[in-house]
Amino acid sequence: MKAAVWHGRKDVRIEDVAEPGPPPPGQLQVKVAWCGICGTDLHEYTGGPLYIPVQKPHPLTGVQAPVIIGHEMSGEVLAVGDGVAGFAAGDRIAACPIIGCGECRWCRAGSMAQCDRVAFLGTSWTGGALAERLNLNAYQCYHLGDAISDEVGALVEPFSATVRAIVQSGAGPDDNVAIVGAGPIGLMTLMAARIQGAKQVVAIEVADKRIEVARLCGADAIINPGLEDVERTALEITGGQGFDVVIECAGSPQTILMAGRLARTRGRIVVMGVFEKPAALDLIDIVFREKIVSGSMSGYGMYDDAIRIMSDPRFRGDLLVSDRIGLDELITKGYYGLLREKDQHVKILVRPD
Amino acid sequence: MKAAVWHGRKDVRIEDVAEPGPPPPGQLQVKVAWCGICGTDLHEYTGGPLYIPVQKPHPLTGVQAPVIIGHEMSGEVLAVGDGVAGFAAGDRIAACPIIGCGECRWCRAGSMAQCDRVAFLGTSWTGGALAERLNLNAYQCYHLGDAISDEVGALVEPFSATVRAIVQSGAGPDDNVAIVGAGPIGLMTLMAARIQGAKQVVAIEVADKRIEVARLCGADAIINPGLEDVERTALEITGGQGFDVVIECAGSPQTILMAGRLARTRGRIVVMGVFEKPAALDLIDIVFREKIVSGSMSGYGMYDDAIRIMSDPRFRGDLLVSDRIGLDELITKGYYGLLREKDQHVKILVRPD
Repeated sequence: MKAAVWHGRKDVRIEDVAEPGPPPPGQLQVKVAWCGICGTDLHEYTGGPLYIPVQKPHPLTGVQAPVIIGHEMSGEVLAVGDGVAGFAAGDRIAACPIIGCGECRWCRAGSMAQCDRVAFLGTSWTGGALAERLNLNAYQCYHLGDAISDEVGALVEPFSATVRAIVQSGAGPDDNVAIVGAGPIGLMTLMAARIQGAKQVVAIEVADKRIEVARLCGADAIINPGLEDVERTALEITGGQGFDVVIECAGSPQTILMAGRLARTRGRIVVMGVFEKPAALDLIDIVFREKIVSGSMSGYGMYDDAIRIMSDPRFRGDLLVSDRIGLDELITKGYYGLLREKDQHVKILVRPD
Repeated sequence: MKAAVWHGRKDVRIEDVAEPGPPPPGQLQVKVAWCGICGTDLHEYTGGPLYIPVQKPHPLTGVQAPVIIGHEMSGEVLAVGDGVAGFAAGDRIAACPIIGCGECRWCRAGSMAQCDRVAFLGTSWTGGALAERLNLNAYQCYHLGDAISDEVGALVEPFSATVRAIVQSGAGPDDNVAIVGAGPIGLMTLMAARIQGAKQVVAIEVADKRIEVARLCGADAIINPGLEDVERTALEITGGQGFDVVIECAGSPQTILMAGRLARTRGRIVVMGVFEKPAALDLIDIVFREKIVSGSMSGYGMYDDAIRIMSDPRFRGDLLVSDRIGLDELITKGYYGLLREKDQHVKILVRPD
């Protein structure tokens, strides 16, 4: 079967690889419908390895490069291993990429994403989702309802992370929420906040194309730091208080500093952005106004909630998919499409068969 | 009467000033026993004004420089204004420096320290505590029990802030707590954590004198970043996990970066340090390990708890007072004592009469 295999930095090859074989006990075999390209995939391609084990096998799965990549997937169950309940051939699913040891304090506390030996689909699992077929642990799979297409199903993984960030932030119906950066994660966070119910959801973005999509995604207001004084406009929009919740989805030194300052006294800043190096916060302000900054990583545990929210007609998956490509176009139209025209794209989906 | 009056940066004068006059309704007149010198006082002296209104009167109190300084006080009630219940002449008290408007969302929610128009004893109140006498709102005053001397009473204000930081951190009996910086606030935080009950309390400090006092204050271990690899030692001490709680009490770019890294997955970092400019956190780590950073400002609401904890025999107030001086020595032995020999001092107390 065909698959995209990471061999090294800037060396991802479309190859014929061995079939995954019958699913072992506790696992499902799944035919991939669509797989999205994630920012992490780009980081692995241009600057990796980040999470791909290269020097030695992964401590939990034994996987080591070369590895089949891709993790934002939807698909159809082909076969069911022994001991699996709740799934049958023909079921449509989305997959959570998190694979934990099942034994450590985090796995036993229901926080598998924090497992000390965590493995991920697409970087350290026996198969990745940019392949025609793969085996997954049944616990990684979540049923897609009829309201969710295969395309939107491939967005469940990133969307669940944004749902979790909103839940972590404690944003409620009386809260003004700012989303810093309207890339794929920012736009999804915007819709998650909108549908979960916030007072106002305000996007902060400079790129015209993204501003346009943010508006269509339901932003109550958009602040463009290139054209206006963000802090002053934020105070006007929030009645002089600042935002109750700020979600940082951009990952740059400018945006994290801004995110901290935009929060009100005792406001909550949730950071989802990927940072390349340490970045500064205005700690005088964080201390004096007792703000709370927390990191949010993965949507583990929020998949059924994400699927429920995505079934709401206000969820506009169509706005989030900016291109659909075949596996052979992964590097040229996929990776380089995103690298060269980042601001023109939201999510690119790949069909592996 | 004699008082220390801030006229400008590096211009604090010991002057004869007018008596405060009979206490208005809701206020008490208090004779000051001792007043500690706080880091903020030094900042006002060497780099101020920080909180002292100079350009225009304070929006709540109308106070404007010159202003009588000092806020870490204990004293004795001399007279009681109309409408005050619960206080009588002769009562011994400590004072909270926070004066709120009583009307805003924060005051009404029991968070007066977050008041939009907050005023402070010693920077924007009608009298400061480096004076023989002053009038205070009755709500600012807390009874000192017999177990607490006047000297220790002057430590209630800074100690309450450390008690609040520990409460905010959620530190419990199973938690390993790191205190970054063993200056006055760090040492008090150490004792607050010890007496409230943590699994281990570990001080991180470079200065020999402070290391010695931290040991006497009950630190279970001390890590000296000048002599050892702090992160490695922290992992050894905590069984490979990192600290459940880290309290940053130093306020330097190095210490905040370290504080973030020393926390375990989902650990809590509470920042009390005073920062002169934005400082960097390792946000890759904060996000990936879902750590929580929060600012903590003032001990408002924790005064009775602080007084209770300070009545515990394990509270060693004697270790915290490194000098006692008269008002005339404020600049020479007080400010310059701290500026020139910071590492040799913990808290200097001033007797204003």
